[in-house]
Amino acid sequence: MRIPNHPPIENLQLSKVLHALSDPNRLRIVRSIATKGEEVCTYYSYEFNIAKSTVSHHIKTLRESGIIKVRVEGSQHFYSIRTEDLNKKFPGLMEMVLATDPESY
Amino acid sequence: MRIPNHPPIENLQLSKVLHALSDPNRLRIVRSIATKGEEVCTYYSYEFNIAKSTVSHHIKTLRESGIIKVRVEGSQHFYSIRTEDLNKKFPGLMEMVLATDPESY
Repeated sequence: MRIPNHPPIENLQLSKVLHALSDPNRLRIVRSIATKGEEVCTYYSYEFNIAKSTVSHHIKTLRESGIIKVRVEGSQHFYSIRTEDLNKKFPGLMEMVLATDPESY
Repeated sequence: MRIPNHPPIENLQLSKVLHALSDPNRLRIVRSIATKGEEVCTYYSYEFNIAKSTVSHHIKTLRESGIIKVRVEGSQHFYSIRTEDLNKKFPGLMEMVLATDPESY
């Protein structure tokens, strides 16, 4: 099983992080990861009624920008927010995102 | 002279605002508008060495998302940040953006 690549904190770029967050479904996934903790890919596919392949693409965008980290357990991938890294590099960003009403996504 | 359209605060969407900010040159333009005050389009073209048509495109993206407002005076357009609206709708966003070192754009 290939371990997914995560950019180190010093390589996080604001434009990439904001691009990753510039999609309503990715914002919904981020909120869900942040509030409900680790889940597998299929969960978001059911919860938000989007194709599993689309969820995988969103997850990849979020991981490559540095917003989430992926933990591999057997054949399953679990996701969590890189809260500490994001708060250090872009203070206030995740707080603002999570405080925003999904109606305004 | 057509007066540029500005979305009202209740229509501002987080995904659109973050998309508008997800480009290093647009981040540079926003920082410049926020720190140096109103300037005309040509100024950013010179300051950041990007084509005037590209600056116009960036300005349009920033205006349509609700980040900047445009004031028309004769044949010239002047730009400013919609700080009050953004702070009300997405508290902490502009502060985080302006606190970020351009090296991390």
